[in-house]
Amino acid sequence: MADDDVADLDLGRGARRGYPEAVYCEGKSVEACAEIALRVSVRADVVTIFTRADADRAAAILAVLPDAFHDPVARLLVWPARQPEASGELVVVACAGTSDLPVAREALLTARHLGRRAELVVDVGIAGLHRTLNRLELFRSAGVVVVVAGMDGALPGLIAGLVACPVVAVPTSVGYGAAFGGIAPLLTMLNACAPGVGVVNIDNGYGAGHLAAQIAAPRG
Amino acid sequence: MADDDVADLDLGRGARRGYPEAVYCEGKSVEACAEIALRVSVRADVVTIFTRADADRAAAILAVLPDAFHDPVARLLVWPARQPEASGELVVVACAGTSDLPVAREALLTARHLGRRAELVVDVGIAGLHRTLNRLELFRSAGVVVVVAGMDGALPGLIAGLVACPVVAVPTSVGYGAAFGGIAPLLTMLNACAPGVGVVNIDNGYGAGHLAAQIAAPRG
Amino acid sequence: MADDDVADLDLGRGARRGYPEAVYCEGKSVEACAEIALRVSVRADVVTIFTRADADRAAAILAVLPDAFHDPVARLLVWPARQPEASGELVVVACAGTSDLPVAREALLTARHLGRRAELVVDVGIAGLHRTLNRLELFRSAGVVVVVAGMDGALPGLIAGLVACPVVAVPTSVGYGAAFGGIAPLLTMLNACAPGVGVVNIDNGYGAGHLAAQIAAPRG
Amino acid sequence: MADDDVADLDLGRGARRGYPEAVYCEGKSVEACAEIALRVSVRADVVTIFTRADADRAAAILAVLPDAFHDPVARLLVWPARQPEASGELVVVACAGTSDLPVAREALLTARHLGRRAELVVDVGIAGLHRTLNRLELFRSAGVVVVVAGMDGALPGLIAGLVACPVVAVPTSVGYGAAFGGIAPLLTMLNACAPGVGVVNIDNGYGAGHLAAQIAAPRG
Amino acid sequence: MADDDVADLDLGRGARRGYPEAVYCEGKSVEACAEIALRVSVRADVVTIFTRADADRAAAILAVLPDAFHDPVARLLVWPARQPEASGELVVVACAGTSDLPVAREALLTARHLGRRAELVVDVGIAGLHRTLNRLELFRSAGVVVVVAGMDGALPGLIAGLVACPVVAVPTSVGYGAAFGGIAPLLTMLNACAPGVGVVNIDNGYGAGHLAAQIAAPRG
Amino acid sequence: MADDDVADLDLGRGARRGYPEAVYCEGKSVEACAEIALRVSVRADVVTIFTRADADRAAAILAVLPDAFHDPVARLLVWPARQPEASGELVVVACAGTSDLPVAREALLTARHLGRRAELVVDVGIAGLHRTLNRLELFRSAGVVVVVAGMDGALPGLIAGLVACPVVAVPTSVGYGAAFGGIAPLLTMLNACAPGVGVVNIDNGYGAGHLAAQIAAPRG
Amino acid sequence: MADDDVADLDLGRGARRGYPEAVYCEGKSVEACAEIALRVSVRADVVTIFTRADADRAAAILAVLPDAFHDPVARLLVWPARQPEASGELVVVACAGTSDLPVAREALLTARHLGRRAELVVDVGIAGLHRTLNRLELFRSAGVVVVVAGMDGALPGLIAGLVACPVVAVPTSVGYGAAFGGIAPLLTMLNACAPGVGVVNIDNGYGAGHLAAQIAAPRG
Amino acid sequence: MADDDVADLDLGRGARRGYPEAVYCEGKSVEACAEIALRVSVRADVVTIFTRADADRAAAILAVLPDAFHDPVARLLVWPARQPEASGELVVVACAGTSDLPVAREALLTARHLGRRAELVVDVGIAGLHRTLNRLELFRSAGVVVVVAGMDGALPGLIAGLVACPVVAVPTSVGYGAAFGGIAPLLTMLNACAPGVGVVNIDNGYGAGHLAAQIAAPRG
Repeated sequence: MADDDVADLDLGRGARRGYPEAVYCEGKSVEACAEIALRVSVRADVVTIFTRADADRAAAILAVLPDAFHDPVARLLVWPARQPEASGELVVVACAGTSDLPVAREALLTARHLGRRAELVVDVGIAGLHRTLNRLELFRSAGVVVVVAGMDGALPGLIAGLVACPVVAVPTSVGYGAAFGGIAPLLTMLNACAPGVGVVNIDNGYGAGHLAAQIAAPRG
Repeated sequence: MADDDVADLDLGRGARRGYPEAVYCEGKSVEACAEIALRVSVRADVVTIFTRADADRAAAILAVLPDAFHDPVARLLVWPARQPEASGELVVVACAGTSDLPVAREALLTARHLGRRAELVVDVGIAGLHRTLNRLELFRSAGVVVVVAGMDGALPGLIAGLVACPVVAVPTSVGYGAAFGGIAPLLTMLNACAPGVGVVNIDNGYGAGHLAAQIAAPRG
Repeated sequence: MADDDVADLDLGRGARRGYPEAVYCEGKSVEACAEIALRVSVRADVVTIFTRADADRAAAILAVLPDAFHDPVARLLVWPARQPEASGELVVVACAGTSDLPVAREALLTARHLGRRAELVVDVGIAGLHRTLNRLELFRSAGVVVVVAGMDGALPGLIAGLVACPVVAVPTSVGYGAAFGGIAPLLTMLNACAPGVGVVNIDNGYGAGHLAAQIAAPRG
Repeated sequence: MADDDVADLDLGRGARRGYPEAVYCEGKSVEACAEIALRVSVRADVVTIFTRADADRAAAILAVLPDAFHDPVARLLVWPARQPEASGELVVVACAGTSDLPVAREALLTARHLGRRAELVVDVGIAGLHRTLNRLELFRSAGVVVVVAGMDGALPGLIAGLVACPVVAVPTSVGYGAAFGGIAPLLTMLNACAPGVGVVNIDNGYGAGHLAAQIAAPRG
Repeated sequence: MADDDVADLDLGRGARRGYPEAVYCEGKSVEACAEIALRVSVRADVVTIFTRADADRAAAILAVLPDAFHDPVARLLVWPARQPEASGELVVVACAGTSDLPVAREALLTARHLGRRAELVVDVGIAGLHRTLNRLELFRSAGVVVVVAGMDGALPGLIAGLVACPVVAVPTSVGYGAAFGGIAPLLTMLNACAPGVGVVNIDNGYGAGHLAAQIAAPRG
Repeated sequence: MADDDVADLDLGRGARRGYPEAVYCEGKSVEACAEIALRVSVRADVVTIFTRADADRAAAILAVLPDAFHDPVARLLVWPARQPEASGELVVVACAGTSDLPVAREALLTARHLGRRAELVVDVGIAGLHRTLNRLELFRSAGVVVVVAGMDGALPGLIAGLVACPVVAVPTSVGYGAAFGGIAPLLTMLNACAPGVGVVNIDNGYGAGHLAAQIAAPRG
Repeated sequence: MADDDVADLDLGRGARRGYPEAVYCEGKSVEACAEIALRVSVRADVVTIFTRADADRAAAILAVLPDAFHDPVARLLVWPARQPEASGELVVVACAGTSDLPVAREALLTARHLGRRAELVVDVGIAGLHRTLNRLELFRSAGVVVVVAGMDGALPGLIAGLVACPVVAVPTSVGYGAAFGGIAPLLTMLNACAPGVGVVNIDNGYGAGHLAAQIAAPRG
Repeated sequence: MADDDVADLDLGRGARRGYPEAVYCEGKSVEACAEIALRVSVRADVVTIFTRADADRAAAILAVLPDAFHDPVARLLVWPARQPEASGELVVVACAGTSDLPVAREALLTARHLGRRAELVVDVGIAGLHRTLNRLELFRSAGVVVVVAGMDGALPGLIAGLVACPVVAVPTSVGYGAAFGGIAPLLTMLNACAPGVGVVNIDNGYGAGHLAAQIAAPRG
C-alpha cells in the first residue's frame, strides 16, 4: 500500500509538555493497535498510555508489550509499566456508584502514571448525604478532587461547596432513559451552583486524571 | 362574527375533580382575558385561578373583577379572592434562590387556594448545604415538599434523600447558557438518585402547587 | 486490590426514610451484583430491592439469595421476599399497551414491597377511549394512579382530567422513530393540560412505584 | 440596481394545481410586501393569499389592494376577496384553547378560500373530555378534521380514535417551558397511537387548511 | 398470575371506525405475539394487521394463524388474509431508494388491506429529476400519493408541487450520520415549501398507508 | 486601562491567503466597530470587509470611512470600496425566496469583492420546479453555484443533481416553527442525495461567497 | 411479485454530470446488492461506485463483478476497476487520526476514480501542531484539501487559515460521549473561524471526495 | 408579607471556602438587587461579588454601595472594592475576539479579586495561528490559562497542546446560527483532542475566573 496510513506518533510530546503520550484504542482495529504497540516498543524512553482498550485490543498490545501495566476495569495499559515517583499534591477520585468505577479507575491510574499520589473513594452519593460528609476530611486534604457521576450528576457541585480546592467533574453514561447517555449529568455539572468545577467529556476518565495531575503538579 | 371563538369554559370541572378552574393567560390577548373575566364574573360559586398574568393582563382582569386576589410576583389572580379553610397536610415550598421566587410563590399560593396550609422557604441551596440541613425539621413535618430550582437543579434530589414524604420538583428557566432555558435542571430532577421525586414542567409553579395540594389532601 | 471499590451500602437508609434500600443492577458487572448480594445476605433486617436485573444478574443474585422474590418481567428481585402488610391508600397502575408491561410491573411490585395495596390495569389507551372510561370507578377509588405510556404518552393527562387524586406518569421507550427513546411521551406528560401529574424518568417503573407508595402512605 | 431581486411569482401555479398562490410575509420587509401586492394587483384572474402578515405588512398590502379580505387574528389577506363557491366535503377545524385561535382561524379561512365549507370549534380539550364527546356528531359529519393544539398536543390522537375520516394535526408554540416552542405537541402528534393523523409544521395553519381542502376536494 | 396483563384487544374498533385492528409487534415478546394471535384466531369476523413483526414474531403468529397473509419485507401479517374488494381512489406509493422499500411496502399493503387500489413506484428521486417527471401521469391519476424518503427527504415536497392531490410523507431512518435516524427527512417534510403535505412518524409505513386509505376512501 | 482589549487585527492575512480581512460586527459594540474602522483607515493597502453591520454599526463605520461601499440589505461594508478586476470562473448565487435575499446578497457581494464575476437569481424554488429548469443554462455556465435556502432547504440538492460544478449551500433561519432557526435546511443540505454539495453555517452568506470565490479562483 | 421494487438505476447520470453512478450499500440487503451488480455488469461503458459495502455486501458484489476494484478499509468497490487518467488539480486528503482512516480513504479513492491526482496525509492534528505545520508545503500545492476529523473537529479550520484553496471538511463519528456521533465536529466545522470551509455529512467520505474532484476538475 | 422571601445570604461561605460570596444579578429584580446590597453593606468584613449586573442593576447597587468597584464591560461589581494582595501563580486569560471581551474581563477581574495576578490577551485566534504562537512564552509562564472562545471554540484545545499547565475553557454565545448560543464551542471544548482542558458553562466568566484562582492558589 503506497499511502502512509499509520499514525505518525508524536513521541516528542512528552518532552514538550512533560506528560506521556496517549493512544485512544476505541475505533482503531486490533491490528492497528498491535502495530502502534510495535512502534512504541522501540522507544522505552517515552511513556505511552493506551486508553479504552477492550479485551481484544489489550491482548494484542500485551502480545507485543508483555510487561506493560494493565487494568482491565479501567481498560488502561501503560508501558513502560513502572509508575513515576509521586510528587505534587494529593489527587482524590470520588465516584457516586459502583457503575461509575471503570471511569473512576481510569482517572485514578492516569493521575498515578503522571506522577501524582492518588486515592479512590467509592459510593459517596447525594442520596446518602452522610456518606459524603464522612469523607470531608479526606476531600479537604486534596489538591484537587475528581468527581465521577452519572444520573443526576449532582455530586461534584455538592463537594465543590464543601472544599477550597478545584473539582474536576466527569459525567458518565450510566442511568435511566432521560440521562441521555450522560447529557443529564454533563449539564448538571456545567450548571453547578458552587463555583470551582471544571468539566471534562462524558466517560473521559483519562482526561480527568490528566487534568487533575496538571492541577496538582509540583511547582517550580 | 359567526364563529364561536371564545373559550367554552369548563365551569363544572371543580365539581368533578374538587378543584378550581384555571385560565392560562400567557398567549391570550388582553381582550380575551377581559372577556373570560366577564364570563367568570357571573359564576361566583366557582373559584377561578388566572395564571401567568402579566401587568397588562392582570389590569384587564381586575377591571372586571376588582375584588380578585392578585399577587404580582406570582402573576396570579384568584376570584373569588377568599382562601378556603385549610385542611390536609402541610405543603412546604422551597426554592434555591431569589430568582426562582415567582415560580415558588405561584406554587405556594396555588396550594393555599386549593385548601392547604403552605409555607415558603427561600435560598436553601446545595452550594450552602448547611442552609438546607438547618430546615430539616420543617421539611420533615410536611406532607409534601415542593422544590423549585434552576441552574443545576440538584436541590430536589438532595431533599428527597432526607425526608420520607414525596417531593414535587419544578425546574426553572434561570441560569447561564447551558441551563438551556430549564432543560438542565429538568434533566437533573428526572435523574435524581433519590426516589420520591415527581417532576412538573419548567416554571410551572401552578402545576406544582396543584399536584402538591392533591398529594396533601385530606382523606375520606 | 488496595482500593475500596465496592459499594459502601447505605443500610441505614431504610431507618431514616422508612423505605427499603435499592440496588440498580444495569451497568454493574455480574460479579459486582453477586458481591452486593453477599453483603445484603447478612442483613435480613433490611429489605433490599434489586432493579433492572437481567437474566444473568438475576441468576447471580439468586445463587446467593435463593429465597429472594423474583419477577423476570419486571426484572426485579426483593430480599427478604415477604411483602409487608398493606397499609395506606390503593395504588392503581395503568399501562397503555402490552409493550409497557415490564415497566408497569416494576412499579406495581415496588409499591407492594413498600407496603401498599396495588392493582394493575393493562391496555387502557387513548386510541380506545371506551376502555379508559370503563375503568373510571377503579381509578377514582385509588389514592394515586401510576400511568405508564410510550408513543404519544397522552394517557396520564387524560386520566388526570377524570380523577381527583394525583397521577404519577412514566414515559417508556416504546414506539416508532420520532418517539426518540421516550422523549416524546416524556414531553407530552410534562405538558399535560390537566394539572395533577408528576413525571418520573423514562422507563423508571421503580421510581414511579416508590413515589406512589409515598403518596399513598398511611398518615400519622 | 442591476440584480433582479424581487420575487418571480409563479402566477401559473393555480392553473397547474388548482389552488391559489401564497405569499409568506414573515421575514419579508414591509416594502417587499407592498411591491409584491403591486404585482399581484394586475392579475385579478389569480387568487393570492398573504399569510403571516402582521399589522404593518397588512397595512402595506391593503394600501395597494384596499378591497382585499383581511382577518387580523389569522394575520391573513386574500385578493380578490370573494370566497369561491363551496364544494366537496365539510372541513371542521378544532382547537384546544383560545391561545391557539390565530392558527385555527388561519386554517379555517384558508380552507374556505380554497373552496370548502369549513366550521370552527373552540376549546374542546383532552382535559375536559366531555367537551370533545359533545361535538362528536359534528366531527363525524366532516370529510376531514383539522386539530390545532399546543402543550401536550394530545387532542388530534383522541379525535382520530373517534372518527373515520383523516385528521390533519397542527402543533402550536403555546405553552410552558418544556413545550419547547411546539416540539412537544409536534412529537405527540407524530406518535399518536390512533392511525389516521397527518402532521404539518408548528403554527402552520395555512398548510393545514390547504391540505384539508385538498383532502375534502370534490372528485371528478 | 392474578394480574390481567394481556392485551384487552379492542375488537370493536373496526365497527366504530370502519378499519381493521392493528397489533404493533416490536417491543412485544414472541410469547405475547403468539397469545394475541390465539385470541385473534377466534374472531374471523374482524381483520387484524400485525405490524413490525420480525422473523421470530412472524413465525410465532403463523404457527397459530397458518393461513395469514405475510410479507417479510414489509414485516406485515394480516388475518384473515383476503384483501377486501378495492374501492375509492387510487393510492400511489413512491420511494426514493431501494433502502426505503420495507417502509414503502408496509404502506402499500396496508392501503390494499384497507380496501384501496394501490401501486408502488421505486427509485424516483430528487437527484435524478427525470425519473420523477417520467411518472408524473401516474402521480396525477392518484387520489393520494404516499412518498417514502430518507436522507434529505426532499421528494415529498417536490411531488406536492406537481400534483393537486394530498401527499402523505414518511421519513425513514436511512442515511449518513447527520440524518440522525430520520430527523433530517422528518424536518424537511414538515418544512416542505409546497403545501399539501401531511407527515407521519419516522418509518411508519403502516400509519401512512392507513391515512392514505382514509383520504382515498369512497364517499357516501 | 492597562489591558490591551482591542482587536489585534491580522492585517497581513490578505498577503498570506490572497483575500481581504473580515470584521464580524454582530456582538461587537458600536464603539468597538468605530475603533476598528479607525485602525483600518490607516491601511488602505489592505481590503477590509465588515459583515453583519446593522444600521447603527454601519453608521459608525461610515463616519470614519465615508467612502466605504455599503449594502444595507446585505449589511455589508467594504473599504476601500472599489471591486477588484473580475477573474476566474462565474459565481451564480440562487435563492429560494425574497426572505433569503439578505444572505444571498451578502454572498454575491463577497464574491465580487474577492474578485469574481457573480450573478444573482431570485425565487427559483423546488415548489415551482419550472422556475429552476428555466435557469438551467445559467447554472451550467457557472464555475460554482451558491444556493441559499430556508424552510425545507431542498434546492441545493436539486441543483446539484443538474449541474457538473460544485454547489455551496447556505441554510437560512427563515420559516415556520419546525425549521428551528435554520436547523431543518441545514440538515437537508448535509443529507442531499446528490453529491457535490458543501455546506456553510446558517445565514453565513459571507462564508459562502468567500468559499465560492476560492473555488472559482483563476489557476496559476 | 407484481411490484417493480428494484432500483431503476440512473445509468445516464454520468453522461449528464460527467461523473460515475454511485450505489449506497448500507441499508440494502445482500441480495439487493447482488442484483444491482448484475444490472451494472451489462453496462461496462458506465463507471459504478459501490459505497459503504461491508464484507458480506462486498463479497456478493465481487461474486458478480470479480474484477472490480475493492478497498476493504474504505468499504468501496468500483467497476470497471481502472482509474481514469488523472487531470485537474491535486486533491490532498488529511485526517486527524488513525480512527478516521476509513472515511479518509473513501474520500481519497473517490477522488482518484473521478479522475484526480490525490494524496493522503495521516495524523496531522491540532494537538500536535508541528505535524500540521510540517506538511504546509504539500497543503499549499493542492487545488483543494479534504480534512477528515472527529472529536473536536478543529483541524479543517486550522488548515483553512493556512492555505488559499478551498477546504472540504468531513466530520467523523469517532470520539468520547459528548462528540455525540459526530455532531460535535460537525458543529465545529460549520463554525470554523477561517472562511473557505465547505462541510459534508458525518462520515461521508464519498461525498467529500466527489465534491473535491469537482472543485479540482480541469477547466474548459 | 409574612413569607421570608429575601435571600438568606451565606455570609460565612468565605470563611469555609476561603473565597468571596457571589450574587448572580440576572433574573433578579432591580429592587431585589438593591435590598441585597443593603444587607451586604453592613458586613464590610466579607467580600461580595455581584455578577451579570446590567446598567440598571449596577446603578441600584452603586446607590447603596457607592464605593464599590464596577466594570461595566464585565458587568461586575465588588464590595469592598480593594483587590487583595496578589499571591500564587499567574492567571492568563485569552480570548479569540473582541466579541468575547465581556466574558474574558469577567474572568480576569474575578481572578484578581480572589487574589491572583492576572493578565488579559485579546484576539489570539486559530484562524490567525501566528498570533497564538507569538504569545507562547506568556502562556507558558502561567499557572493556568483561561481561554474564552465562541464560534468553533477551537482555541482552548490548541493552547492546551502547547503548554504544560491546566486550561480552563469558557464557551461563549457569540456566532452564526449553528453555533446555537454557545453549544458548538461547548462541544468542541469538551472534545478537545489535547488533554488538560476543564470546561465551564457558556458565558460563565465568573466561574472560569474562580476556578482559575483556585488552581493557581498558593499552597500551604
